[in-house]
Amino acid sequence: MRSGVTREECVALDRADPLASYRGEFVVEDESLIYLDGNSLGRLPRATVDRVGQVLDAEWGHGLIRSWASTWVEMPTRLGDLIGTGLLGADPGEVVVADNTTVSLYKAVSAALDSCPERSTVVIESANFPTDRYVVESLARQRSLDVRWVPETGPEPLGADDLAPHLDDSVAVVVLSHVDYRSAALLDMPVLTALARGVGALTVWDLCHSVGAVPIDVHAAGVDLAVGCTYKYLNGGPGAPAFTYVSAARQRKLAQPIWGWWGGADMFDMAEGYSPQADIRSWLTGTPGVLSLAAVEPGVEMVVRAGISAIRQKSVALTGLAVELYDAWLAAEGVTLSSPRDPDRRGSHVTLSHRDAKAIAAELADAGVLPDFRRPCGIRLGMSALSTRFVDVYDGLAALRNAVTATRR
Amino acid sequence: MRSGVTREECVALDRADPLASYRGEFVVEDESLIYLDGNSLGRLPRATVDRVGQVLDAEWGHGLIRSWASTWVEMPTRLGDLIGTGLLGADPGEVVVADNTTVSLYKAVSAALDSCPERSTVVIESANFPTDRYVVESLARQRSLDVRWVPETGPEPLGADDLAPHLDDSVAVVVLSHVDYRSAALLDMPVLTALARGVGALTVWDLCHSVGAVPIDVHAAGVDLAVGCTYKYLNGGPGAPAFTYVSAARQRKLAQPIWGWWGGADMFDMAEGYSPQADIRSWLTGTPGVLSLAAVEPGVEMVVRAGISAIRQKSVALTGLAVELYDAWLAAEGVTLSSPRDPDRRGSHVTLSHRDAKAIAAELADAGVLPDFRRPCGIRLGMSALSTRFVDVYDGLAALRNAVTATRR
Repeated sequence: MRSGVTREECVALDRADPLASYRGEFVVEDESLIYLDGNSLGRLPRATVDRVGQVLDAEWGHGLIRSWASTWVEMPTRLGDLIGTGLLGADPGEVVVADNTTVSLYKAVSAALDSCPERSTVVIESANFPTDRYVVESLARQRSLDVRWVPETGPEPLGADDLAPHLDDSVAVVVLSHVDYRSAALLDMPVLTALARGVGALTVWDLCHSVGAVPIDVHAAGVDLAVGCTYKYLNGGPGAPAFTYVSAARQRKLAQPIWGWWGGADMFDMAEGYSPQADIRSWLTGTPGVLSLAAVEPGVEMVVRAGISAIRQKSVALTGLAVELYDAWLAAEGVTLSSPRDPDRRGSHVTLSHRDAKAIAAELADAGVLPDFRRPCGIRLGMSALSTRFVDVYDGLAALRNAVTATRR
Repeated sequence: MRSGVTREECVALDRADPLASYRGEFVVEDESLIYLDGNSLGRLPRATVDRVGQVLDAEWGHGLIRSWASTWVEMPTRLGDLIGTGLLGADPGEVVVADNTTVSLYKAVSAALDSCPERSTVVIESANFPTDRYVVESLARQRSLDVRWVPETGPEPLGADDLAPHLDDSVAVVVLSHVDYRSAALLDMPVLTALARGVGALTVWDLCHSVGAVPIDVHAAGVDLAVGCTYKYLNGGPGAPAFTYVSAARQRKLAQPIWGWWGGADMFDMAEGYSPQADIRSWLTGTPGVLSLAAVEPGVEMVVRAGISAIRQKSVALTGLAVELYDAWLAAEGVTLSSPRDPDRRGSHVTLSHRDAKAIAAELADAGVLPDFRRPCGIRLGMSALSTRFVDVYDGLAALRNAVTATRR
């Protein structure tokens, strides 16, 4: 593709796109809106409207309490298996969906720490997403841990050479984000996991910005624990619950810290003394939110059906187009590329920086283009392969060019 | 009311019931079903179907990411205020809705413990709901606490004389359920809270089985912390999120343990170092489930509109009718009353025990009557004043009488 790519060429790319039909599976009421924030909140699948309606009418309204036994009780593991086997390279019984990402991270990091009480250091990127850092800070305060902050490497991904100096046999757990929420830097999961394991540390991977957009194989990478959200590329809805992966091998050795009746061996035994479930359900706490859980299923099914290879292929083309248009239109206008140029090192969004980013984002919103503004000066353009078109990227970048020009005046 | 109460008298009671019209505000597809489990899962309000549809279509589908700023971000506190001021006797800013009951209890008990590290004892009823006990057990293990189990007093409520021997100046926190999930025993919140405070201990009240059914005044009782669920008498839907009350005075001294971006002072600052919100929002962890939160609002609004006094009055009449019919039909049939006889000491359900309870519950289900079976031998009959009719109680107890007879054959 030449840097002088035309809108007509983008229309042609959309016409030839094998995933083009998926856009029709989403509710798109306003075709004039250019939505480049599917990495923050994915669009609403049409099937989700039906699924939630079914939960309300048939399962809650009509089935009432009986629906717990007939269907709801299995939702956290059924949905976990769908995500685990379909998108993570996990086996059935290794993933569960419940609680939010923050609580899930708290459980995962806490369990990792408990498994090796003789170690008291946590390693985490200083550029990691705030909630990941806050969770580590709260556990560090509770347990008098030593936190090692790995300096920011952005926009390039944290590499083995960056991580290695922070690892030694005092490290209990390494907390990393697979795709950086700002730069979209894509970390090498197998290499970094192996590096941590080399010093006897466990890894907790945050998959929020990669699941559904980037191929993941937790088994091949030897990942111990992972947590991810379902409301970005999985289109699970605002605040949809998170998933937690615990490798089968680790499940026998790891215990999460928030004991509740859903994690207990027999939920209705009402027994004295907590005894955890013998499987991934021990990672449950209390009653999961059924409406939110049910809303996750159709989006995940769609992503699995489309296939992560096809999604990744289109995603790389979309972000590549954004970079190409940046080069052609914005590089000379005071805008910086804050994402890796190499598609193999990049997730499914592209961040551009400008000192007037806030004003530019406001201009864009007025022009019907919705990216994400990230302080202090980032404009994050998210491409969701199942609903974002090549023309959306073209029109969005064109609007961005206009907004940059407008704010300079 | 005579023990020889007739079905016609129940029909007359329903006709005279000032709350009768509320039943029409719920989805009742199968009028032949006698639902006596609203204390486990409340019925679906019609308004909830509309509200959830609005969130899906207008807010998620159309508004997309913009709906966070315009409405969703305030849901945990808006709904918290509605519950707090409408049903708990709290001020605005003292209640927040997020996470499930188990996680909320974990945060509350943990915060209470952190506030007085020189004390290491937790007092809890041995008959408390499993998740309450498990949460205390998990914290006891993490922190090497001493747990004092107050022996069961059922079916009568735990009184001051029962609690007092377990209190001294080593006690950090007392965890009590306002209404017992099995017996419906209603504890004297002001008296027991004052007793705990007398030795310098904080109280964490579990309001799951009382909120929306029993008048609560946390200010008058001097309660420090309380947690409750929204899917029973508040009709918030399966697994609907829990609420947490933290008195304004305590908020300055208490910090919850799971730090996340939603509890941070500036969610989008992405700052180094966790700094909590200065208000009740510091009790948030990660992104709350919007669909589940939205579904809670209509049910709470309905309960507030109906008024807790009217609800309690009808609830007492309904449970009183159940006790009266028990006396007339079941007391001589090997069935035991496992709830307090005095309505002032009883919540909104009545538990009857029989050695063949499991078989009886199955018979009842076949007869279109849905109570709750609670091992080993309890049949829990829940009366939800806004949707349960006097004839439902009559027909339900009549079916129970038949089922007892049938299992004896």
